[in-house]
Amino acid sequence: MTLLVALTWDPKPWVERFGQYLPEHPVVVLGEPFERSKVRYVATWGPKPGSLSDLPALEAIFSLGAGVDHLMGYPSLPDVPIVRVSQDDLTRRMSEYVVLHCLMYLREQRRYDTAQRARTWEPDRNPPVASDVRVGMMGFGVLGQDAARKLQIMGFDVAGWSRAPKTVEGFQIFSGEEGLTRFLARTDILVSLLPLTPDTRGILNKSLFAKLAQDGRLGGPALINVGRGGLQVETDIVEALDAGVLKAATLDVFQVEPLPQDSPLWTHPRVTVTPHNSAVSDPDMTARYIASQIRRHEAGEPFQNVVDLTRGY
Amino acid sequence: MTLLVALTWDPKPWVERFGQYLPEHPVVVLGEPFERSKVRYVATWGPKPGSLSDLPALEAIFSLGAGVDHLMGYPSLPDVPIVRVSQDDLTRRMSEYVVLHCLMYLREQRRYDTAQRARTWEPDRNPPVASDVRVGMMGFGVLGQDAARKLQIMGFDVAGWSRAPKTVEGFQIFSGEEGLTRFLARTDILVSLLPLTPDTRGILNKSLFAKLAQDGRLGGPALINVGRGGLQVETDIVEALDAGVLKAATLDVFQVEPLPQDSPLWTHPRVTVTPHNSAVSDPDMTARYIASQIRRHEAGEPFQNVVDLTRGY
Ligand SMILES: NC(=O)c1ccc[n+]([C@@H]2O[C@H](COP(=O)([O-])OP(=O)(O)OC[C@H]3O[C@@H](n4cnc5c(N)ncnc54)[C@H](OP(=O)(O)O)[C@@H]3O)[C@@H](O)[C@H]2O)c1
Ligand SMILES: NC(=O)c1ccc[n+]([C@@H]2O[C@H](COP(=O)([O-])OP(=O)(O)OC[C@H]3O[C@@H](n4cnc5c(N)ncnc54)[C@H](OP(=O)(O)O)[C@@H]3O)[C@@H](O)[C@H]2O)c1
Repeated sequence: MTLLVALTWDPKPWVERFGQYLPEHPVVVLGEPFERSKVRYVATWGPKPGSLSDLPALEAIFSLGAGVDHLMGYPSLPDVPIVRVSQDDLTRRMSEYVVLHCLMYLREQRRYDTAQRARTWEPDRNPPVASDVRVGMMGFGVLGQDAARKLQIMGFDVAGWSRAPKTVEGFQIFSGEEGLTRFLARTDILVSLLPLTPDTRGILNKSLFAKLAQDGRLGGPALINVGRGGLQVETDIVEALDAGVLKAATLDVFQVEPLPQDSPLWTHPRVTVTPHNSAVSDPDMTARYIASQIRRHEAGEPFQNVVDLTRGY
Repeated sequence: MTLLVALTWDPKPWVERFGQYLPEHPVVVLGEPFERSKVRYVATWGPKPGSLSDLPALEAIFSLGAGVDHLMGYPSLPDVPIVRVSQDDLTRRMSEYVVLHCLMYLREQRRYDTAQRARTWEPDRNPPVASDVRVGMMGFGVLGQDAARKLQIMGFDVAGWSRAPKTVEGFQIFSGEEGLTRFLARTDILVSLLPLTPDTRGILNKSLFAKLAQDGRLGGPALINVGRGGLQVETDIVEALDAGVLKAATLDVFQVEPLPQDSPLWTHPRVTVTPHNSAVSDPDMTARYIASQIRRHEAGEPFQNVVDLTRGY
């Protein structure tokens, strides 16, 4: 019945909450002594590969975030369902971030900031409106769809890109390799909400940037990456910005985190850096979510949001 | 049948469009010779008081913007309906601005900008989500209601304030003097979308700021004024910012426009200045709107969005 908490951060807030929402399950922490044979569930983020093997009674692993790429390099991942967190609170936070940064591009907030510093009053008499701006949502899953709907309500012209062909009311969705070029050709703001898998690693590179629309109302395409740092090739981003292939980039995730002090991204005038903060998992909501999944399972129902190991997400 | 264009800016784009959408009506321009007795309609923004008198055949005045305060000081305003522009394009632009700036406060974009300049990686492990933040929409008319709905979809906790008591599904609406104090006490971000009238002039002053919520998740209340500059007392805004009564302010409108070079607002670290650009009137959309109102009128139907002169808006 034991739940093992295996984290690279402070486990205390998690242990407390699991104690509260799953009072019938003892909670133990990786790094302190515990009986391996009693562990039935693991709640984890980023522990050392190998630390989850040799748990004979294990029934499920819960990833404490929407991504599961941190588990994918595991040499000996136990053969049990891997359940990822998907909860409204995280989804809403991600959409706040995506809508904010799309609006900053639409409304040229950086230009007005610069004008303010120079005390210049320069209203634009013919600015674009959201419907003039085409957002391309790369990754049209739980997070991509919520952000897309909210962007659409704000007036943006939004399309999606997914792995398998799919239909979502109100959106044009491109898919696979063959859909990608057409998708990019109609994209002024590219939002990346892809999972990191062998197929998507390094996908945000110079050959992709070169396919983005160059005829849009924003004076060049912009990139917003909130998926994972491993999706992007940072040297290519800087090159594309300097060559005018990309107009600007907003990055919440990086190849190495925290972003190293000597990265040129920190000071590039057209790059916005945020510290992997676009959608933090609230411990309370996440613990409730995991508790509800454990209750479903113990009542004989299947887990929700089980990761497909062959796809990698 | 003549339409007189009376503007303080370049009338050319307007004359062209009226010619296109109202081909049966001759268009004349204030400042050039024309026959006063033939003018049936006026489309105007900010001309000299007096320039609209002595037009015996006048049937309506169209204000080329949502506000009509520019007409209210007129000594001898002709006794005809004053029709204000209300069109979806302008409404959408205003909501883009309001949602953008509320999200900048929620997501502490200015703090992350500062952190980026210092190359510091400081994710907030417990940031507020939109539902933790109470927006107070001061003025709950066409523009206020559209912005309020979009903020609500983004998750914000939105309430309104109006002159007369009113009911709008999904919102708590306070009204009048007696509702104002309770409205302010639950407001973390105050958005002003009021018209400028004798009742509202100078309403955004230090005694009002002192009534805003001081217990919110944003570390102090913020002001966003997109109504009119005459609503605000700029010396009080600076004082309230420096005293910590206001945390920050985003101002699109000013007591004097363009904002004078020596205004302390330009350089205040917690003030965002934009050049009265939150919702520009698109000449094309506006000309179509006015043409459609003239057609309604000539078909015997009443004008829409007629200003109530006793209320002043
Ligand atoms: N920055 C942060 O703070 C933060 C927070 C949470 C999550 N995230 C990231 O956001 C990602 C997405 O989360 P989610 O909940 O939306 O995941 P999801 O529901 O699994 O959706 C993933 C989407 O990506 C598409 N996709 C995957 N591989 C693809 C490929 N090779 N080519 C084209 N499309 C592909 C999927 O296509 P199908 O529809 O065809 O399956 C699906 O539309 C997570 O994996 C995580 O990396 C970041
Ligand atoms: N910055 C820009 O670029 C820009 C662009 C467009 C418009 N504007 C400004 O936005 C204003 C609002 O436009 P709108 O189309 O939303 O106007 P509207 O539909 O007439 O709405 C005005 C709202 O203000 C309320 N109000 C008026 N006087 C009040 C008072 N003394 N106390 C409390 N509430 C009062 C009204 O209350 P009731 O509901 O009780 O009538 C109504 O809810 C315009 O007047 C203009 O000044 C600015």
